Amino acid sequence: MSKIKQTIKSLGEFGLIKYLTKDFVNYDKQVKLSIGDDAAILKLKKEQLQVMTLDTLVENDHFNCKWSTPYQVGMKSMEVNVSDVAAMGAMPTYALISVVIADNTDLKWLCELYRGIKQVCDKYKISLIGGDTTRGALKMISVTMTGITKKPCLRSGAKMGDFICVTGQVGSSSTGYLGLKAGEKLTQYIKKRHLEPKARLDISRKIAKFASAMIDVSDGVGSEIRHIASASQKGAIIYAKNLPIHDDVFKMEEKLGLNKYHCALSGGEDFELLFTINKKDLAKLKKIRSINKNEISIIGEITNNKKQLELILNNNQKKEIPGGWDHTKC
Amino acid sequence: MSKIKQTIKSLGEFGLIKYLTKDFVNYDKQVKLSIGDDAAILKLKKEQLQVMTLDTLVENDHFNCKWSTPYQVGMKSMEVNVSDVAAMGAMPTYALISVVIADNTDLKWLCELYRGIKQVCDKYKISLIGGDTTRGALKMISVTMTGITKKPCLRSGAKMGDFICVTGQVGSSSTGYLGLKAGEKLTQYIKKRHLEPKARLDISRKIAKFASAMIDVSDGVGSEIRHIASASQKGAIIYAKNLPIHDDVFKMEEKLGLNKYHCALSGGEDFELLFTINKKDLAKLKKIRSINKNEISIIGEITNNKKQLELILNNNQKKEIPGGWDHTKC
Repeated sequence: MSKIKQTIKSLGEFGLIKYLTKDFVNYDKQVKLSIGDDAAILKLKKEQLQVMTLDTLVENDHFNCKWSTPYQVGMKSMEVNVSDVAAMGAMPTYALISVVIADNTDLKWLCELYRGIKQVCDKYKISLIGGDTTRGALKMISVTMTGITKKPCLRSGAKMGDFICVTGQVGSSSTGYLGLKAGEKLTQYIKKRHLEPKARLDISRKIAKFASAMIDVSDGVGSEIRHIASASQKGAIIYAKNLPIHDDVFKMEEKLGLNKYHCALSGGEDFELLFTINKKDLAKLKKIRSINKNEISIIGEITNNKKQLELILNNNQKKEIPGGWDHTKC
Repeated sequence: MSKIKQTIKSLGEFGLIKYLTKDFVNYDKQVKLSIGDDAAILKLKKEQLQVMTLDTLVENDHFNCKWSTPYQVGMKSMEVNVSDVAAMGAMPTYALISVVIADNTDLKWLCELYRGIKQVCDKYKISLIGGDTTRGALKMISVTMTGITKKPCLRSGAKMGDFICVTGQVGSSSTGYLGLKAGEKLTQYIKKRHLEPKARLDISRKIAKFASAMIDVSDGVGSEIRHIASASQKGAIIYAKNLPIHDDVFKMEEKLGLNKYHCALSGGEDFELLFTINKKDLAKLKKIRSINKNEISIIGEITNNKKQLELILNNNQKKEIPGGWDHTKC
């Protein structure tokens, strides 16, 4: 491996983007937030902000046609972008889709892909407004999505003492991926979580009303809390025992010889929401929890020490919060 | 080849998009134009429209690392999107970029790619606001670009008797591509036209003020005039002798055993502007031509007969205007 290739790997996905775009100039005062959050924020109208995000799914990296139906790939390509919009506290509005068709793509596959895309468009009332189709050596789907919000929820607003919370359950999607790769049989729960991930637009707007910071869990809780801590210039403590993890995930981790909590902390694609709240807002959190079948867990706390990224294990042993999934490495 | 694969080919790039998206619902009255032009149009503000486009460049289809430097690939990935924005009569504002890195990509290549992207951002004062970087089996660059305009210029406004005009010279980029593929040595002119295409934002806004319809020449004059005729429900006559083609292109076509005019009509990626004007506006056209070194040619006329798509050859022989480059086929 060359020295230069090692440098890409050592920068990591987010370090790489930061490095490559460090000299770019913002020419427009309507740009309120550029690279570095789940989506960019544009103030195009008084009292309304537009968010905009672009994510690409690549065959054999983000989806595998051996395991996923094209309908599931279509849904996933949309849900991952809805998840970015949801993490900004916004409602999705428009989508543009660019599909690269490989030589082995047939019309039936494409129709099923678009049926999956349409299912998500209809569910969230998203208008598909453009895109292109082209030929390449492997399948790829790029989705640009816009959203609107009056009050965006950024990664950078966490304050000392805030609770760190997460919706739903984490670790299941990447357990599914690693299980399939290893040829393991998946439980129905893990299979569904991996092949049909869902954005949490159902509760994102309620949470955004009082959350101090928010991000979607696309690269594992470890990676996401690091993003919030870094953007907010704070530290964080996570209690492993509080991580909401399904028993099937623990069982699969054991089968695969992985550390407990590995997939929750360093896996990816759960598309749950990780957010922070002021302790005073606990009653608001409890209200949402009571409506949503307790689907929110308090997993830790924000601290003032920027260097503190601490994971407390069940035996009270402390270790550093691990980083997450990296699409430039795996 | 399966029956289904044949169907993708028979639909073609634009037929395919139309077919796949026919059942999608527009959920937002701010969407003024959806799929079917160079860009979508959104009315987000009173008296100002936002245009939005997404184009993907795939290695070995849209660029080849044997011939193009990464700096040139970066510039091209931006210019093709600026060209779509220019064809709407709009000024580009924001860009989001998604890069798929192949295993053979090194940091130097990526830095050069982004230097090319930045060169175009700085030239047109475009703010890069987001995107992602991921890993795949081949290099790909998806660019989403927005623009603003008060009065967009669509494909659908051509009227009977309108002159059909084109900026600059056509056929050169695809001649370069086919020449390189055949191992031919290119002239400096053809090389530059193929490897460093430029959008015509320098005159697009002046033309948009009075053009009845406009499109950028990304798939050959034949394809583009068919788009304008179809969207405007009109016919068209093109005079081959009026097509602005450099001598180097004719020479290369001869060398490659191609018909004369093949690359101008059915090639692609010239990124010139094809537009129609009312004959009464000839003086306005002449004024732009006098400032821009006669860089606009009148190549034909719009007719009322929808079925008429006629190419008049130099010997006055008539034939049907051929279709263009198709990225789902080549």
